[in-house]
Amino acid sequence: MNFCSDNVAGAAPEIIEAIARANSGAAMPYGNDPWTERVEKRLAEIFEHEVWVFPVATGTAANVLCLSALAPPWGTIYCHTESHIAVDECGAPEFYTGGAKLALIGGADGKIAAADLRPAGAGVVHHSQPAAVSITQATEAGTVYRPDEIAAIAEICRTHGLGLHMDGARFANALASLGCSPAELTWKAGVDALSFGATKNGAVAAEAAVFFDGAKAASVPYRRKRGGHLFSKMRFLSAQLEAYLADDLWLRNARHANAMARRLGEGLATLPGARLAYKVEANEIFVSLPERAIAGLEAAGFRFYRWAEEEGGALLRLVCAFDTAPADVEAFVATARSILRP
Amino acid sequence: MNFCSDNVAGAAPEIIEAIARANSGAAMPYGNDPWTERVEKRLAEIFEHEVWVFPVATGTAANVLCLSALAPPWGTIYCHTESHIAVDECGAPEFYTGGAKLALIGGADGKIAAADLRPAGAGVVHHSQPAAVSITQATEAGTVYRPDEIAAIAEICRTHGLGLHMDGARFANALASLGCSPAELTWKAGVDALSFGATKNGAVAAEAAVFFDGAKAASVPYRRKRGGHLFSKMRFLSAQLEAYLADDLWLRNARHANAMARRLGEGLATLPGARLAYKVEANEIFVSLPERAIAGLEAAGFRFYRWAEEEGGALLRLVCAFDTAPADVEAFVATARSILRP
Amino acid sequence: MNFCSDNVAGAAPEIIEAIARANSGAAMPYGNDPWTERVEKRLAEIFEHEVWVFPVATGTAANVLCLSALAPPWGTIYCHTESHIAVDECGAPEFYTGGAKLALIGGADGKIAAADLRPAGAGVVHHSQPAAVSITQATEAGTVYRPDEIAAIAEICRTHGLGLHMDGARFANALASLGCSPAELTWKAGVDALSFGATKNGAVAAEAAVFFDGAKAASVPYRRKRGGHLFSKMRFLSAQLEAYLADDLWLRNARHANAMARRLGEGLATLPGARLAYKVEANEIFVSLPERAIAGLEAAGFRFYRWAEEEGGALLRLVCAFDTAPADVEAFVATARSILRP
Amino acid sequence: MNFCSDNVAGAAPEIIEAIARANSGAAMPYGNDPWTERVEKRLAEIFEHEVWVFPVATGTAANVLCLSALAPPWGTIYCHTESHIAVDECGAPEFYTGGAKLALIGGADGKIAAADLRPAGAGVVHHSQPAAVSITQATEAGTVYRPDEIAAIAEICRTHGLGLHMDGARFANALASLGCSPAELTWKAGVDALSFGATKNGAVAAEAAVFFDGAKAASVPYRRKRGGHLFSKMRFLSAQLEAYLADDLWLRNARHANAMARRLGEGLATLPGARLAYKVEANEIFVSLPERAIAGLEAAGFRFYRWAEEEGGALLRLVCAFDTAPADVEAFVATARSILRP
Repeated sequence: MNFCSDNVAGAAPEIIEAIARANSGAAMPYGNDPWTERVEKRLAEIFEHEVWVFPVATGTAANVLCLSALAPPWGTIYCHTESHIAVDECGAPEFYTGGAKLALIGGADGKIAAADLRPAGAGVVHHSQPAAVSITQATEAGTVYRPDEIAAIAEICRTHGLGLHMDGARFANALASLGCSPAELTWKAGVDALSFGATKNGAVAAEAAVFFDGAKAASVPYRRKRGGHLFSKMRFLSAQLEAYLADDLWLRNARHANAMARRLGEGLATLPGARLAYKVEANEIFVSLPERAIAGLEAAGFRFYRWAEEEGGALLRLVCAFDTAPADVEAFVATARSILRP
Repeated sequence: MNFCSDNVAGAAPEIIEAIARANSGAAMPYGNDPWTERVEKRLAEIFEHEVWVFPVATGTAANVLCLSALAPPWGTIYCHTESHIAVDECGAPEFYTGGAKLALIGGADGKIAAADLRPAGAGVVHHSQPAAVSITQATEAGTVYRPDEIAAIAEICRTHGLGLHMDGARFANALASLGCSPAELTWKAGVDALSFGATKNGAVAAEAAVFFDGAKAASVPYRRKRGGHLFSKMRFLSAQLEAYLADDLWLRNARHANAMARRLGEGLATLPGARLAYKVEANEIFVSLPERAIAGLEAAGFRFYRWAEEEGGALLRLVCAFDTAPADVEAFVATARSILRP
Repeated sequence: MNFCSDNVAGAAPEIIEAIARANSGAAMPYGNDPWTERVEKRLAEIFEHEVWVFPVATGTAANVLCLSALAPPWGTIYCHTESHIAVDECGAPEFYTGGAKLALIGGADGKIAAADLRPAGAGVVHHSQPAAVSITQATEAGTVYRPDEIAAIAEICRTHGLGLHMDGARFANALASLGCSPAELTWKAGVDALSFGATKNGAVAAEAAVFFDGAKAASVPYRRKRGGHLFSKMRFLSAQLEAYLADDLWLRNARHANAMARRLGEGLATLPGARLAYKVEANEIFVSLPERAIAGLEAAGFRFYRWAEEEGGALLRLVCAFDTAPADVEAFVATARSILRP
Repeated sequence: MNFCSDNVAGAAPEIIEAIARANSGAAMPYGNDPWTERVEKRLAEIFEHEVWVFPVATGTAANVLCLSALAPPWGTIYCHTESHIAVDECGAPEFYTGGAKLALIGGADGKIAAADLRPAGAGVVHHSQPAAVSITQATEAGTVYRPDEIAAIAEICRTHGLGLHMDGARFANALASLGCSPAELTWKAGVDALSFGATKNGAVAAEAAVFFDGAKAASVPYRRKRGGHLFSKMRFLSAQLEAYLADDLWLRNARHANAMARRLGEGLATLPGARLAYKVEANEIFVSLPERAIAGLEAAGFRFYRWAEEEGGALLRLVCAFDTAPADVEAFVATARSILRP
């Protein structure tokens, strides 16, 4: 009954089995192995495009490899005020880029609106140089960017010569929510580099920095190595990704998590005193509850994060994962209802 | 029959099982889990000292967390000319320290001699400031530092106010070779920070930066996070380390690898035309062989790295791992013998 | 008739003469010279406090030496949205700190209000760590912080363990405006490190990073050297500062610039269609003018920057310097009046 | 009678006068001034090539702007063991490049021999990538590279795709010594970027990073700004360079310094017990003297650096400057002779 995050979940059994299966004698290190080769091929199929793939173990690593390939040390990276790269990575983007600047842009529902993107100062030596835009899919507000919204941002990127990065820590959840193709959500909409997340959606620890342009990826092998993110026994990373992509495991997991979140959101929306802060479009719910409801839920054994303090209560974040039990969702809503009933 | 490296091996079954066992429902992320807590306790017992433990997935990550905690951006880190941090990390130490300088010191058998350590320039603003010494245990030459050798280096460190780092990517092999205690090989000899390796010795991907002084470790949580090395599902890292340390798995694995290397070294030493470059003290053998022997071994399906080209042949590096089969060792020696017999 | 900036001015004759006078035979390099020693002593007298002084040639250099001494690579530096360090240094603070984050705070009149300073995330490894506050004196809006305003900010710094930096590129103008003592405006109010500017106020190229706490300054000699800011013939830097401080030249220059700005502001304030954006408290005026007035002034040979575009005109920035001629000020106002008269 | 360094000298009167002359009313800042424009044109004439010129105030600044434009953070810069960038810049090259590695190459007479340049590891992700070579002209041993020696190094650079940097802190001295053209000593021999020094040879504080290829210089404006090396009142830097280049002042100064050094070297060479370590080809002399001679010279008021301790004495470095008095040279030799006479 832990709704704190999708990273409190364990791993999908298929992922664990893939790790065990990959333990099959000698394999050359550092990605010169068949698992890694197959993952690259599979991702190329899935994205219907040539891809340059760099498996790593954390979302932060994937993000900063992408960002540092797109922005020079004197670059500006435009991102949402609430974005993970701005708020939750302890300055990793600044570290890996060599000191680029994150320019924070507010925006409803955790999304940057293209109209609010106004790169300035290009060529003026006093200013950090507009270099990239980073968007999160699904967003930190549990919403998703539609392909046309991404394309509108990409259009501005093209005009100003900026790279476009997508932090896809919950890419599968967004994809499952939108029902479009991976290509439509990325390069067809103008994305240059994608942090392709798997950990939150059932892997042990596996992500990939995925580039759709080889020139932009040229420095990444060195950046990954000197970041300490080149795994010697990389087959165990790649095996996770392979299993994740096999038989639509990634989409099945994401659909389940999204469905649980939707159900949870719908249940809470009907309660007096509860208010959803955002539409539930992926696997996260942000709900305002009065203090006595929060206390009651905690007493009943539910765990979650207080996202923001509010008058007489708090905004909670509830996250569903690939393994969230429907019964837990029902129990959460029922408990809240029993407390909040008039 | 792959002797390229101990990182071509898979993982010990106990490690895989531990990962599977750790997949047991929800657990709080980022190290706030029981596995991580137990690993810290276990390492404190093993080292007979309070320790500050930072599990990561690569040896480079462990090394650079240690080094960046010991050396400021304007610091000098003294290390062996052949050391991994100098040669094989694509500048990761420079990256994480913010630009510290590695001062290379030659020395027989892959070891720095205390007498060759002459920190200079302290307080002179034009020079990088002596900050740390890094030694590798077992060394890149397959030899080991004895506790008294370490203590002699540590004495110089103390005199000059330098930190002492040990790259223990093959710490277990060194320990098994020397038969001393983990404490004797580290803090009792003057080591401040240890890269405690497990990957090469049977883990999937697990290392730990281990500090024996909390003040020196104070910045490491932030360094790890912004390096992208803080795992959300850290239990899967810690579970590997826990299994590694349980029932002496780490020492059993290391003893086996060392024994295989010794046997391989002894077998090769008797062959005409073969010459061991260093004493075999851990799990690596460096042997000079004539070209026809190399060609014959390759033809027979053996794999290994050519470490250095030599007149009429090459210096090979052969590495044994926890899972090296005695039969493969015998076959290697027999094949070489059959080619080199007079 | 150039009101673009106080850096379009030349240098005060006293400064040029001091440079010429310092050209007197051999002197030891890198600050081991009598000029530098005298400047340190003089600044200690002026600030009524022990000081650690690092002469450099640019304001950016002074700022980043101060900031990098106060904030670690994972630190957050709070500053005004319009501050020079945020907007006009091409990421120099990020570069010198090794990737610290500037957290931008809005605030009327170019000033941070203490109430808007809410350092958060201390000890939480995911977040950049609150490290320092930087304020500009006089501000980028031409206003000044009163000692009590600084003290209120410093109080928050103390509570949260943050360093307080003052970008004093126009420190003399602020001092002249407020009529308080250098001590009252700095360490007595809680400032830890000051960028003491001289260039804009009559030097050729001379600033100093001034610390009021030796422990905080301990790393600065190395930072300055590796930044390339340790002058070999430092006497020529120090001689400028010496002359700047002699016979109150710095205050006389600042008073003149301020007086010219005040007169310009008062003149413009009376014109129909002109609107001052901020009170004129130092040597900068921000005035909204209609386009025809701007065009007429340009045609008459006046130069200035368009600070922001506005409906039917622009917000102009006009800066007076130590050498601004009263006649130019009169001419500017008269020209504007002749255009704007009803 | 100070032979410590050419940076203990003051400035040439022509330079001081140029600074005073440049103090002539308003001028646009940051290099948008006529002085800077003229310097660029003049350097293009002198080098018979299009040049991209970045005036700065210190040799370290010029060096690191050049190096950071030629080497990525994961690059290796090959340089002499004794080079200023390796020994005397407190890690500035590592700082500005974002962590590149200096690979030290020994070599007689302070020079790298082309035959000792063996760039390795290109394309291998574990290794820092060969990126640039840096040579010093005149060298730290007071010798000079002939154009054919530079061309041989440049040939290796071309083969391996490396940039070639020349630290010309004493470029004029080398030029005066060799009697060739500036073009022959730089781009015609294969140099990509030159630190063009003026400070040691009579300027107050003026150097320039000079590029012969615009593409290689493209990032330098941003690097200079964020390094804090973009002067607002840049005319005062450029005016120094303009005067330096006018009427062959730079070459006259260098010829004088060289002549003084030659005379000093010739005088010392005849003394019993004195031994010149290197040929005197520019303005530095390295001479071994017995302790009693050193003591006697010091007692007589001469100042110099002890470069290296030796049995019974020391290796001294003596540097002549544009303003070294012949009488001082004579006095030095005479004093030494009187002590050492048999």
